[in-house]
Amino acid sequence: MQTQPLPGFRDFYPAEFAFRAHLFETWRRVCRRYGFEEFDGPPLEPLELYTAKSGEEIVGQLYNFEDKGGRSVSLRPELTPTVARMVAARAGGMKKPIRWFSIGQMFRYERQQRGRLREFFQLNCDLMGEPGPLGDAEVIALAIDLVRAFGLEADQVRVRLSDRRVLQALLRGAGLTAEQLPSAYAVIDKLERMKPEQVADIREDRDERFGPGVGARLLEVAALRGWPDVQAALAKVEGGAEAGAPFAEVLKALEAMGLAGFVDVDLTIVRGLAYYTGTVFELFDAGRSLRAIAGGGRYDELLKLLGGVDLPAVGFAIGDVVLGELLKERGLVPPAPAAIEVFVAGVTAEDQPHVLQLAHLLREAGLRVEYALRAENLGKQLKLADTRSARVAVVIGPDDRARGEVQLKDLAGKTQRAVALARVADDVKAMVADG
Amino acid sequence: MQTQPLPGFRDFYPAEFAFRAHLFETWRRVCRRYGFEEFDGPPLEPLELYTAKSGEEIVGQLYNFEDKGGRSVSLRPELTPTVARMVAARAGGMKKPIRWFSIGQMFRYERQQRGRLREFFQLNCDLMGEPGPLGDAEVIALAIDLVRAFGLEADQVRVRLSDRRVLQALLRGAGLTAEQLPSAYAVIDKLERMKPEQVADIREDRDERFGPGVGARLLEVAALRGWPDVQAALAKVEGGAEAGAPFAEVLKALEAMGLAGFVDVDLTIVRGLAYYTGTVFELFDAGRSLRAIAGGGRYDELLKLLGGVDLPAVGFAIGDVVLGELLKERGLVPPAPAAIEVFVAGVTAEDQPHVLQLAHLLREAGLRVEYALRAENLGKQLKLADTRSARVAVVIGPDDRARGEVQLKDLAGKTQRAVALARVADDVKAMVADG
Repeated sequence: MQTQPLPGFRDFYPAEFAFRAHLFETWRRVCRRYGFEEFDGPPLEPLELYTAKSGEEIVGQLYNFEDKGGRSVSLRPELTPTVARMVAARAGGMKKPIRWFSIGQMFRYERQQRGRLREFFQLNCDLMGEPGPLGDAEVIALAIDLVRAFGLEADQVRVRLSDRRVLQALLRGAGLTAEQLPSAYAVIDKLERMKPEQVADIREDRDERFGPGVGARLLEVAALRGWPDVQAALAKVEGGAEAGAPFAEVLKALEAMGLAGFVDVDLTIVRGLAYYTGTVFELFDAGRSLRAIAGGGRYDELLKLLGGVDLPAVGFAIGDVVLGELLKERGLVPPAPAAIEVFVAGVTAEDQPHVLQLAHLLREAGLRVEYALRAENLGKQLKLADTRSARVAVVIGPDDRARGEVQLKDLAGKTQRAVALARVADDVKAMVADG
Repeated sequence: MQTQPLPGFRDFYPAEFAFRAHLFETWRRVCRRYGFEEFDGPPLEPLELYTAKSGEEIVGQLYNFEDKGGRSVSLRPELTPTVARMVAARAGGMKKPIRWFSIGQMFRYERQQRGRLREFFQLNCDLMGEPGPLGDAEVIALAIDLVRAFGLEADQVRVRLSDRRVLQALLRGAGLTAEQLPSAYAVIDKLERMKPEQVADIREDRDERFGPGVGARLLEVAALRGWPDVQAALAKVEGGAEAGAPFAEVLKALEAMGLAGFVDVDLTIVRGLAYYTGTVFELFDAGRSLRAIAGGGRYDELLKLLGGVDLPAVGFAIGDVVLGELLKERGLVPPAPAAIEVFVAGVTAEDQPHVLQLAHLLREAGLRVEYALRAENLGKQLKLADTRSARVAVVIGPDDRARGEVQLKDLAGKTQRAVALARVADDVKAMVADG
């Protein structure tokens, strides 16, 4: 019999689910602090939603099929087309800026390799309707706080930040034509993964791609690090100061928020996708041993292209897989909570209805409670309480009932005391809260 | 441009998402009180997982297809086959009884009609490894508490409870053969939807289905209501007392838990599915104007059949759609929380870095905070605070800064007072907690 999930898919047993819930709950808490509201779309969408954005070549990576009504449909590989569709359907009635986040499962038919899954969860955050740099800063700060909330600090995680407008001004200043820019972005995006001789080819213009001397200047631009150097370079090119103004505002805002220590200005970050129009950023572990944790930027034309609504937007996505690996590597996984807090046990068979009544009373008080589902002696019941890591055992027997009492056992401290029935819920709650 | 989701699929805008989150969070809270632990499986599974349980005819209702590796796969129409698969993969290492719950989206290609969706969310609860009646009672109590937690009481929601063993003993006593039982279950399952002449056909045995007089006695059995009448009928048939013993234990346990008031013993509840072996139950709104809210029972053979692990089990599923309709009908939908609690405003342009710093400080304290993302005068900023339903505005200007203070505005009470910077977070928290 088949007991494994499909290749590239995960089963979340309670321990794995608890870790996933920790990620999602932390993400939710931080997003809400920024006034972001949660939404969700369907995991199955019309195929054209994805081909309209990424072209027919995306289909090779999709879980797409024809449904029983003859519609071409696909499991979602990403959320942005759904966001564009949903905003387009109601844009007129929504207050701007729109602050939305969503946590959902995405599906990509990737070639099978170690650590490559075919499903993953992704948090998407989008701020729509605000073109100014404070919008960018707000979203970058949110991305930083999303990892800080797990205990990752500036020595463990870095934001690599660039701006397409800055890069464009510097590349034009370096002698590239407007037509060469897409090709230049593609080169810069791949620089880190290139072999030295490939980099030399560009520097020497051996492939006559950018023109004599231009390739070398392109590499100089890509090598710029830190705002002072970028700013100095901008000062030397036409329109440079103007192109750099929003970026400077973003950096100033992050400084005011106390988050500048996380940020590296790094012009090699261009992001592969064609649709970014301003800031672009990626989050990495400081040692760069893992893939990017998150990535995003400003895409002021995309919603119009996809959904027909002309709204400037800035946003990012963060997945559960790389962040999860990093947290495990750094020992930042909290222990899963015990399944129950209280175990109710009876001394004799006649106590059973009282056990049920008491268990239900404690559940009504909000406590997590179990009891033996078959007749067992007290020793076995208390062993069961241990197995389930209960904090407290409540024991009821004929003598206790005669006195209107129960026995409360602290299963950690191994102490025991009698408590009046009317006080059980409050006393147990206090013990549980205590540790 | 396409702005609508696929037919039968839903978009969850923030208001709809908040209601869905209210359902899920309430379900989680109640399940945890019963010691149930959350898990999840993949939404896409091998097709054979479903055909093995339900036969090839299920395929007409599935979102099934061939993936790019040539595998026959399907979006999950239900969770039980996944549960069986996951338990089979690890059964040996898991403590019994296993108490599991899961909240997930299911997909069925249903014919399009009003109120019929093609996706829905479902809470599945399963107690595995315990054959005794206290297991049944535990699971039925959980189902009741899951609706009680939304404010639905015994005058609004009813559990219709039966037991296949009881029904079988009474039907055999009524003269049905073992071979006729499946046919009898099918008739009883449909009784409520039959026309009077169809019922008369059975009573008079016009279709010669059950034999002379047997059809009439079958209807008498199905008409039994309440434990005293069922118990009296059982006393008259061979093996009746024995067949009724577990059911009596279940009822006694629900009585001890204080939940008997929700329960109607009703032998017309058989549940369509062949695999139930003991108790069967459905939850309905008391007026029965809606479809069943939840349904389940004991299925001691199913895990063995599906996953190869011989574990007795009892469980149920509850969907988001019918329960959601009922809660809306009864006015039991809580208002969605405001997106933010605090709005930070600056008096002059020079205050902006201080606004950012303060906003971040308040977010660090766990508050939900926004501020204007572009330069606006104070009046406009406070209007924005109103639009977002903020409870408190924190205003900072040059004079305040000179004194190391900010102004706290209670936006509901329209009061204002100066507070030292060091106390802002605590004071705002107190105001927000205050309502």
